[in-house]
Amino acid sequence: MFDPTDMHGIIPPICTPLTPDGAVDVESVRRLVAFQLAGGVHGLFVLGSTGELAVLTAEQRRLMLETAVAAAGGQTPILAGIFDTSTRRCIENGLMARAAGADALVLAPPYYYRASQRELIAHFRAVRAAVELPILAYDVPGAVNVKLEPATVAALAEEGTICGLKDSSGDFHGFREVLMRTRHLPFRAFTGSELIVDSCLHMGAHGSVPGLANVLPTEYVRLYDLARAGDWSAAAAVQERLLACFCELIAQGDPGYSPSASALGGFKAGLKLQGVIAHTTVAEPLHSFTAAEEERVAAVLRRHGYL
Amino acid sequence: MFDPTDMHGIIPPICTPLTPDGAVDVESVRRLVAFQLAGGVHGLFVLGSTGELAVLTAEQRRLMLETAVAAAGGQTPILAGIFDTSTRRCIENGLMARAAGADALVLAPPYYYRASQRELIAHFRAVRAAVELPILAYDVPGAVNVKLEPATVAALAEEGTICGLKDSSGDFHGFREVLMRTRHLPFRAFTGSELIVDSCLHMGAHGSVPGLANVLPTEYVRLYDLARAGDWSAAAAVQERLLACFCELIAQGDPGYSPSASALGGFKAGLKLQGVIAHTTVAEPLHSFTAAEEERVAAVLRRHGYL
Amino acid sequence: MFDPTDMHGIIPPICTPLTPDGAVDVESVRRLVAFQLAGGVHGLFVLGSTGELAVLTAEQRRLMLETAVAAAGGQTPILAGIFDTSTRRCIENGLMARAAGADALVLAPPYYYRASQRELIAHFRAVRAAVELPILAYDVPGAVNVKLEPATVAALAEEGTICGLKDSSGDFHGFREVLMRTRHLPFRAFTGSELIVDSCLHMGAHGSVPGLANVLPTEYVRLYDLARAGDWSAAAAVQERLLACFCELIAQGDPGYSPSASALGGFKAGLKLQGVIAHTTVAEPLHSFTAAEEERVAAVLRRHGYL
Amino acid sequence: MFDPTDMHGIIPPICTPLTPDGAVDVESVRRLVAFQLAGGVHGLFVLGSTGELAVLTAEQRRLMLETAVAAAGGQTPILAGIFDTSTRRCIENGLMARAAGADALVLAPPYYYRASQRELIAHFRAVRAAVELPILAYDVPGAVNVKLEPATVAALAEEGTICGLKDSSGDFHGFREVLMRTRHLPFRAFTGSELIVDSCLHMGAHGSVPGLANVLPTEYVRLYDLARAGDWSAAAAVQERLLACFCELIAQGDPGYSPSASALGGFKAGLKLQGVIAHTTVAEPLHSFTAAEEERVAAVLRRHGYL
Repeated sequence: MFDPTDMHGIIPPICTPLTPDGAVDVESVRRLVAFQLAGGVHGLFVLGSTGELAVLTAEQRRLMLETAVAAAGGQTPILAGIFDTSTRRCIENGLMARAAGADALVLAPPYYYRASQRELIAHFRAVRAAVELPILAYDVPGAVNVKLEPATVAALAEEGTICGLKDSSGDFHGFREVLMRTRHLPFRAFTGSELIVDSCLHMGAHGSVPGLANVLPTEYVRLYDLARAGDWSAAAAVQERLLACFCELIAQGDPGYSPSASALGGFKAGLKLQGVIAHTTVAEPLHSFTAAEEERVAAVLRRHGYL
Repeated sequence: MFDPTDMHGIIPPICTPLTPDGAVDVESVRRLVAFQLAGGVHGLFVLGSTGELAVLTAEQRRLMLETAVAAAGGQTPILAGIFDTSTRRCIENGLMARAAGADALVLAPPYYYRASQRELIAHFRAVRAAVELPILAYDVPGAVNVKLEPATVAALAEEGTICGLKDSSGDFHGFREVLMRTRHLPFRAFTGSELIVDSCLHMGAHGSVPGLANVLPTEYVRLYDLARAGDWSAAAAVQERLLACFCELIAQGDPGYSPSASALGGFKAGLKLQGVIAHTTVAEPLHSFTAAEEERVAAVLRRHGYL
Repeated sequence: MFDPTDMHGIIPPICTPLTPDGAVDVESVRRLVAFQLAGGVHGLFVLGSTGELAVLTAEQRRLMLETAVAAAGGQTPILAGIFDTSTRRCIENGLMARAAGADALVLAPPYYYRASQRELIAHFRAVRAAVELPILAYDVPGAVNVKLEPATVAALAEEGTICGLKDSSGDFHGFREVLMRTRHLPFRAFTGSELIVDSCLHMGAHGSVPGLANVLPTEYVRLYDLARAGDWSAAAAVQERLLACFCELIAQGDPGYSPSASALGGFKAGLKLQGVIAHTTVAEPLHSFTAAEEERVAAVLRRHGYL
Repeated sequence: MFDPTDMHGIIPPICTPLTPDGAVDVESVRRLVAFQLAGGVHGLFVLGSTGELAVLTAEQRRLMLETAVAAAGGQTPILAGIFDTSTRRCIENGLMARAAGADALVLAPPYYYRASQRELIAHFRAVRAAVELPILAYDVPGAVNVKLEPATVAALAEEGTICGLKDSSGDFHGFREVLMRTRHLPFRAFTGSELIVDSCLHMGAHGSVPGLANVLPTEYVRLYDLARAGDWSAAAAVQERLLACFCELIAQGDPGYSPSASALGGFKAGLKLQGVIAHTTVAEPLHSFTAAEEERVAAVLRRHGYL
């Protein structure tokens, strides 16, 4: 039985494997979930930014989520991203996710139009009321152009509208403030800052949602276990090795393509190289990796001793 | 018969009237189109940013567009916004718009992920190939976080992928550069900078897509006619009166709500006050105006002599 | 006798010629002023951003300004930039400029710390009271990180604290608003947007402060004269030829150097190529052009028919 | 004897006390230094952003620094900020600081013009060669508009041009990368992120430069000592109490004034309330606190139990 007050650990924001023609690659999804479970992760975040939520069609989202839920088979909690451009669309996504069997929802501020904090509070309440699943707020101003202020997160936590936070803001003063203001609550805070996970755990975070854990779940689980055991210097060594690899891994796209394409391509290539997914295709307009780009990713992983 | 090489004049980005429960208000749409036709506009841009494209569901978009097409009855060209988060979704929107009877499409860079210029060129080509309707590029970096570089617009124009531009970038050096580089082509450039329309026409723009023309179409048509007749000082007087009104009109929302809510609410209140639409509702999470906010908009319009 | 209410036309923000060891190159300053006078300019803006005000020492500023004043010999008004990091330092700069014989001062918001509009109003008043020379406000948020809001400019104009504006904000809605709100005053507005000078003149600007006029003063004077004569299409042709040249001229720096170095180097190379100044040195840390970079600038000017 | 490879601990960026007419208040400087020494700090950073370096005149800078050096009497190292708009001006500042007795220099990228990383490397080398004192790089993109990239810092550290870093970038991925890449060197990294000092120490920082330590030096020294003793939970308790106070302390300025004025005023009021400095004056154009604003700061410090 899923208990949102016990969420913790490494919850990778898994990629959505696609076939070369852009369909969800169901077999690859199943292998990816199995790979993550074998890696010992503490949950899966399906349909996040790394999972290309924003570009998938409603039908693709449903298929991806149902496949992941079935593949996980109740062995680990499934968090589903449902953020979109409006409250109504988020609710539709949430109802779909609930029907598909998600344990909890991840909700960012709507993108395109920029809502105020006051409008965002109403937004979270409306989705929570309509969907009746635990909701983690997702603070990702780099993508949605709006910051979830610490006071907003704290207010939503206090009243029980949200049960947790995924923080990908890069604002650690704000993250610390949220940790302080929610410590008396059954509230769970996760960091998306995958290159300083140990520091965030030390600061009081309950876990992390690291994109690179798609490729290297066991490493992140090891980092988490070492931190929980209080062996911070060993955790730091694992973290810094991952940091060094990450900076290169996400930079192997050909010149002229976007950083997003290069990062998503790096993750997917890292998975394909391990036989987990079949293709490195990402949704257009982002560029999909060629064999040459995939080979450069392989070289990075080998150089850092991960392959 | 619609001729994209002859597009010109005032093409308001019309609001999408909603009922209090958030449905498309079909009767209000019909009245809004009739009001615009009576105002002498040279086209209608349906499902733009002002039309809340991004927040409407697929079904709402279809209903809005079909209603507008039917109401226009071929008396004026209908441009349909089809921008979205991915190439695939834009194509789906484009096929819907074609089926609904749009004359041309308006396509911005995808939002959420930020594509590179190289990826954007492929994006425009793919949509154009799949949909086979004339496409105007839409440069709106404030909303989609990516600038359409003048060189990109010029390249797409040169090869015939796009037939025009709607520029809402606020970058007039870039706009001038596009005008220069496309002058030898059957290419049409429109400005979304509604407060300096006369200057843009003088610079060589073929027309404008002014949000405030929702409320005051005859004023903008008069501005355009005066400019075309070479009476620039009379055009300037019309423009500056509109500018003064606009700055106040879009600032009547209560404190704590977003600028987007305040602007959309200002336009919708201006329409409701004239009996054109029935409600000032905007899609959540944006705040919808109260009676007090509507009354402040009325006071602004009265103070500036428009009501 | 200088009359600030009659300022108009082309007032180039002249470069500060430097010797290879970074000293003010007095002979080159004299030739540059003579070159500008021969070009028919309507004033000179000494110690602006293009004049490297911010990086010169107090002594260098004084030498540059005194040399320019002497070289101009009263044939054209001298405007002196005095902006700095604090009110006190601006006043010191202003007193120096007055003693050196400047006719008017150009004052931007202080840089480094970001003042509020309320603090800026007090700043302009304090400098005006202490220096007692006519002051033009300089709106250049790209350099100083603070926008001079139209309402601030209008208030300062209304009370007589400032007699004009140099607008390099790229915000044409705001510029138009200032023009509207100051039209009843003896107030003079100049644009720094050197690629759409004709449009700004048409909008009501009294002149321009174009960096490229360092290199091509006669072209900008011709543009101005054509516009004043009402021959807007000829003015546009001159403007667009300048625009096309400018985009290349400022982009000839070697890879790895800053856009500022590339732009300043382009202007200085354009002057050196015409025998006006002796060296292309700019103040460190910005990169100074090599012979190869200078040659590329020459090729640009030749290709566009200016050399 | 000062050993730059042993720099560590709490090095407050001390305020520059001013008299109501804007002169350096020498008596207050002496009391401030004594207050800091009594608080057990491990060094003093004079003429930083908090010390209003950018707005002081050359003579004021010299007086402030000489007074602080004399007051410290060799009991603690004195770091002097020398950043400015150009390499030449930074060298002049550095020579002054050396003559005034500073032990080390703090150098940020020049402000106003934005240099490239390549230009910045040359900048640091030139200043180091000319001044021959140990230099800490200062990464403060929010003020100078340029980020010191981790690769730049690492390269300058490797070649011995810089001996340390003060990081006020808020970019903890980058800070971690610098820590990793300089660990084999006698290099010292300090964080300016005063609200998560414990986390930064845990990550490997050697100390912090916290603005709030002006007011509460003993608290920050206690935080540091607890962290060094491995009592991280006690350190966190101290940190979080400071965080809660800080957020209010810097927000007591009247509406309409800048955040900079509010923060500097908060620090100076906190010092005046403890009898350390005589006036809360800050350099214009920033607003100086009134008695009412000072009283609000007192209330904040009382409410948090610090007064």
